Amino acid sequence: MTWENLPGHVYIQEVVTRDGLQIEPRFLPTQDKVALIDALSQTGVAKIEVTSFVSPKAVPNLADARDVAKLIKRRPGVTYVALVPNLRGAQEALTANMDELNLVMSVSETHNRANMRMTPEQSLEGFRTIVESARGTPATLNGSIATAFGCPFEGKQPEAKVLKLAEDYLSLGLDSITLADTTGMANPRQVADLVSAFRRRFGSVPLTLHFHNTRGMGLANVVSALSVGADRFDASLGGIGGCPFAPGATGNISTEDLVHMLDEMGIPTGVDLAGLLALARSLPALLGHDIPGQVAKAGRSGDLHPAPADIHLAAK
Amino acid sequence: MTWENLPGHVYIQEVVTRDGLQIEPRFLPTQDKVALIDALSQTGVAKIEVTSFVSPKAVPNLADARDVAKLIKRRPGVTYVALVPNLRGAQEALTANMDELNLVMSVSETHNRANMRMTPEQSLEGFRTIVESARGTPATLNGSIATAFGCPFEGKQPEAKVLKLAEDYLSLGLDSITLADTTGMANPRQVADLVSAFRRRFGSVPLTLHFHNTRGMGLANVVSALSVGADRFDASLGGIGGCPFAPGATGNISTEDLVHMLDEMGIPTGVDLAGLLALARSLPALLGHDIPGQVAKAGRSGDLHPAPADIHLAAK
Repeated sequence: MTWENLPGHVYIQEVVTRDGLQIEPRFLPTQDKVALIDALSQTGVAKIEVTSFVSPKAVPNLADARDVAKLIKRRPGVTYVALVPNLRGAQEALTANMDELNLVMSVSETHNRANMRMTPEQSLEGFRTIVESARGTPATLNGSIATAFGCPFEGKQPEAKVLKLAEDYLSLGLDSITLADTTGMANPRQVADLVSAFRRRFGSVPLTLHFHNTRGMGLANVVSALSVGADRFDASLGGIGGCPFAPGATGNISTEDLVHMLDEMGIPTGVDLAGLLALARSLPALLGHDIPGQVAKAGRSGDLHPAPADIHLAAK
Repeated sequence: MTWENLPGHVYIQEVVTRDGLQIEPRFLPTQDKVALIDALSQTGVAKIEVTSFVSPKAVPNLADARDVAKLIKRRPGVTYVALVPNLRGAQEALTANMDELNLVMSVSETHNRANMRMTPEQSLEGFRTIVESARGTPATLNGSIATAFGCPFEGKQPEAKVLKLAEDYLSLGLDSITLADTTGMANPRQVADLVSAFRRRFGSVPLTLHFHNTRGMGLANVVSALSVGADRFDASLGGIGGCPFAPGATGNISTEDLVHMLDEMGIPTGVDLAGLLALARSLPALLGHDIPGQVAKAGRSGDLHPAPADIHLAAK
């Protein structure tokens, strides 16, 4: 690996209370969500995707979006984001003074129809109306390209199609782009290729990588992206946020496992790993189940163990 | 990532019946071990570490080493390996006609004393007697350097110390080297650095990387190693083989997740992934517990799902 393009700082973007909780079997009470977000605000993460202003019928777990946005303590320096599926959601997010709105559609038409219930044209038209309604507000707009590394219905998406959609986003006036591996189909070679192609075409437009660890390649994809200069990653505390098509599969890459790896590699994130680990270890009690994150169980690489007591005898 | 050093073929070396089973709570009956090894022989893996000729008191799960070695069907082209802790084990392995003996000591003195109950000098002297006793037999000798990426008692080991031990191994007459991340402490940057240093010093001496996924970095370390030309990896079906210091942590990297990633990256292994997945999915019934491997649960990236039936209505 040539590390010549390695970023000097990596931005950690926490999505646990949005992507993580979305398909949890239990509703996490509003005060627990607020406490979790407030605690995450203290760890040094750059962004927190707080919630989604989506129909409570579509995502019952996030039905308290307005209350959560109102009750959290805003820490200066942290960007508070809401996912918005449409104009109505965007207006609610703006009313709630979110710092950033995250607009999303899938590059796969089948997935967009199934997930957003819109054609690609309808989605882009929706984006246009959101851009208009956000004009003059301080909110920034990020555009997420779901299924950028593959669609569970259509399979791999051509690189040119993904880049064309990113271009459409930027033409509409969005500020930054997320390439999302919605169901964990990305592989490290594809990641390096797509991130490099994005950089060649769009220069320094801020780019986030959103990986799931569905098939065990989450951190491998991060390493591959880092090696071509990517420096913003979404991750979910504990690695929660499974895939509806893969019961038992893990979810988003785990924030604490990501920060641990970057720490070990000597890449600064500004995030307090001990604080993150304490929060990750509180999740099983909150959620009622084990978490996929590994470092919360294994401890950090640097956490040494006492040598066995009988070692001197044995060495005789 | 620059892929210019990417190997044209990767050798998959299966260790499930040795490293995988070593600390399983249950003894896997001999006929189940034999059936598993014989089935693995059909999948195209390059090597199978069959067992360890170790004291049954030290590792009760492998007390049937002699029977397993006798009962398996040797498939031409597959290298059948036994781990040997000492001269007596080596003699048993030679009597059992193993193709390769895997000798092991830890670069960390504390770990070697705790694990092998020998000083470094005693271990190397043991290696010398094994080399002598194997002379004139067709068996090849591999030397594994345990804790090469860190020791749970001592922490990181200096690169120079690891390379010096590799040199000692080669001077004694061993044919090939394994760098083992015994308790999952390696990070991708360290892996690229150590593998590159090994290559600079020892040229084309065959090198195996043995990673554990204890902290979620297993496949990330593989990608990093691949990028500097490594082409031989140990892995365990299902990812079993946990760490005694980290209850609940995963074990070796999962063979099927490794082969899946390499398939997705377009790197040939000659291994039949479908066959491996079928075997991995049989493990929970054999072992009485779930496995850490992800692809056995999530399916391959290319396994597409039917689009939801209501998609056309929804798109109106």
